[in-house]
Amino acid sequence: MKSKFWPRGFSASGLSAGLSKKKNKKDMALFVSHVPAHAAAVFTNNQVKAAPILLTQDRQVKTRGKVRAVVCNSGSANAATGKPGLQDAIACSKWVSDGLSFPKDEVWVASTGVIGTRINLSKYEKGVKQLIAQVKKGPVEAGAMAAEAIMTTDTKIKIAETSIMIDGTQVRVWGCAKGAGMIHPDLRGPRGQLHATMLVFILTDANIKSSLAQRALEWVADKTFNCVSVDGDTSTNDFVCVIANGESGAKEIKTLNEKSYATFRTALLGICDTLSTKIAEDGEGASKLVQIIVEGARSEHSARTMASVIASSPLVKTACHGADPNWGRVLAAMGRSGVKFEQSKVKIWLGDMLVCHYGMEKVFSEADAIQYLKKKSVVIRVNLGLGKQWSQYKTCDFTGQYVGINAGYRT
Amino acid sequence: MKSKFWPRGFSASGLSAGLSKKKNKKDMALFVSHVPAHAAAVFTNNQVKAAPILLTQDRQVKTRGKVRAVVCNSGSANAATGKPGLQDAIACSKWVSDGLSFPKDEVWVASTGVIGTRINLSKYEKGVKQLIAQVKKGPVEAGAMAAEAIMTTDTKIKIAETSIMIDGTQVRVWGCAKGAGMIHPDLRGPRGQLHATMLVFILTDANIKSSLAQRALEWVADKTFNCVSVDGDTSTNDFVCVIANGESGAKEIKTLNEKSYATFRTALLGICDTLSTKIAEDGEGASKLVQIIVEGARSEHSARTMASVIASSPLVKTACHGADPNWGRVLAAMGRSGVKFEQSKVKIWLGDMLVCHYGMEKVFSEADAIQYLKKKSVVIRVNLGLGKQWSQYKTCDFTGQYVGINAGYRT
Repeated sequence: MKSKFWPRGFSASGLSAGLSKKKNKKDMALFVSHVPAHAAAVFTNNQVKAAPILLTQDRQVKTRGKVRAVVCNSGSANAATGKPGLQDAIACSKWVSDGLSFPKDEVWVASTGVIGTRINLSKYEKGVKQLIAQVKKGPVEAGAMAAEAIMTTDTKIKIAETSIMIDGTQVRVWGCAKGAGMIHPDLRGPRGQLHATMLVFILTDANIKSSLAQRALEWVADKTFNCVSVDGDTSTNDFVCVIANGESGAKEIKTLNEKSYATFRTALLGICDTLSTKIAEDGEGASKLVQIIVEGARSEHSARTMASVIASSPLVKTACHGADPNWGRVLAAMGRSGVKFEQSKVKIWLGDMLVCHYGMEKVFSEADAIQYLKKKSVVIRVNLGLGKQWSQYKTCDFTGQYVGINAGYRT
Repeated sequence: MKSKFWPRGFSASGLSAGLSKKKNKKDMALFVSHVPAHAAAVFTNNQVKAAPILLTQDRQVKTRGKVRAVVCNSGSANAATGKPGLQDAIACSKWVSDGLSFPKDEVWVASTGVIGTRINLSKYEKGVKQLIAQVKKGPVEAGAMAAEAIMTTDTKIKIAETSIMIDGTQVRVWGCAKGAGMIHPDLRGPRGQLHATMLVFILTDANIKSSLAQRALEWVADKTFNCVSVDGDTSTNDFVCVIANGESGAKEIKTLNEKSYATFRTALLGICDTLSTKIAEDGEGASKLVQIIVEGARSEHSARTMASVIASSPLVKTACHGADPNWGRVLAAMGRSGVKFEQSKVKIWLGDMLVCHYGMEKVFSEADAIQYLKKKSVVIRVNLGLGKQWSQYKTCDFTGQYVGINAGYRT
């Protein structure tokens, strides 16, 4: 699968190192910039942070966002592994930096899989050697292989790409993501107030400093990945990074006020919105995408809190699965959200169908509503009638398959 | 089914009035004290409160807890029905007060079922006439029929009863409950800071004033019903009441400092603990009871918050269903609970088996752990190593049946 907009100066590779329980499943990925690059990253805000998260956070600060490579494995999250786990993460990254002659702190590490188990280091080391052999052939596009290697319970490869013009020069942005369960991201930057196991790797040949890329990523992540929920469980390993190497030859984006910054941020928003939608659609056991929109709120924050509670309600999510226009469950979830509202002003739509007004039932065609809810993508919209602010959350329906996947995940 | 400790001076009745969709399912219950009685109650803290909740709350305050009868229906929650719904609730109670010649404000009303649909008043009125005909025969014990009538997706009748001695006189306490889904009670008294569709009716022939009974109920409800979760969804209709009519002839419990108050409160705690355990066990689709204990915390509040988050985690609950000793999911839920802790001090047990210490895996027999998790009742215990406070939450496993029940509930 060839990318349309693979960024210049990057290589990727993906292969099976035997770390995953599934035989021949690709389980290691490597992303490399062949020239020094600037990077931005946001990490899980779960108090329990995996070893690779701790190591990468530390390196981001230490190098002020300089990075050459990111190595990732599936099969083990290397979380709740204590100091030995941290030593493992350091060793993993060192095989990469040594093999590619990169400064050791300029290699980032990410992991996903079972919590509490150590990584098989001998398999990992062999995997790194093979990954390096692939990328050493020069800029090689193997994004799809890398995107496949980071998958766990995902059923689909998730890639988004675009190209923009910065002062007449083409700039490419390519991203891939994994994430299907333990998805309720709460991503945060080192300074910012931001809020899955969700891993996202975004590569671009834009010319932008780490600090500006960080501003853009925090703003974007908060509007996209932080508004996705599959099961309400925030992971110990969530990680999103943007690596920019300037190889497009485009003019440097220097300040927040430039038009080029806005162009870049908008492109990043598009990529992250597409990837976050793909994550919700491919949620464990999901048969449909469910978008919750709360509008007419006094603040974006309150709209978002309410959207999050509705999107996390098992009763709302099972009703979506059963195509049951049971809007009362939406109203009940709103009522426990902690957000103040006036019931008599509430309106609820299923798609374009108004089913509740003045906080009471609006007579509607049950048959039409059922037909609508059987679609692969449904929108539940709430208007509080209190103000002009709004927010949204993307989730999926709750199915028997979800239980099957997670009752049998490990043993 | 005859009760052992049916309180003196009370009658109950239950029958099918055709309000439920299931043919011949009992769907109306009436509890009557044949003498003036004092009552305490706690109600859902969901901002969206059903009409019967609003009416009963109002009457509790107005009459200072004087009550003669409580009438309850299943099949319609009479929630999100606006002013017309409130008029319906008033009409429903008036048929009872007129039929029994009770002061109109001394009849309480409770409902459970689908949100947003009006009650069929003609069926309700006929039902009340039959219920009254039953109880007019004098003190009739039909507790089990009433307990059956309040059920919705419950698979079992939930009754608890006990007797205590107050100064040498026997006092009886009998209670019944319904609740299997939309269970995450947040019950609150009119004054107190307390936190399901859970309905609980407790009858006692103890001699105690409303204000004291209220103090006892708020304390007890907070330690029992407010520590139960099936699906994390708090209902619009949760209601727990204790009706005391003094017909035991026992000495009046007058102050908080009397030994008799402690005896009464302990009996109430036993009844509510038993009923709340039955609710968790009979959670929609549940195959087992799961108890989460958090100890070694700095405060009871923090222990309880953490226990609630673990008990609500779909990943923990599906692991229990699959008998998967995946303690990493417990640790991940702890990490997103908002409660501060030191990962290196954390210990986690499955039953008596230590599976995590110093925040890392403690080598354990996977086979033994699986065997343990296959039991009908399991305990997950966490010690934070920070203090002496503790709390607990009762829940159930998350099964494919839960999805089946709720995807097909209404349509």
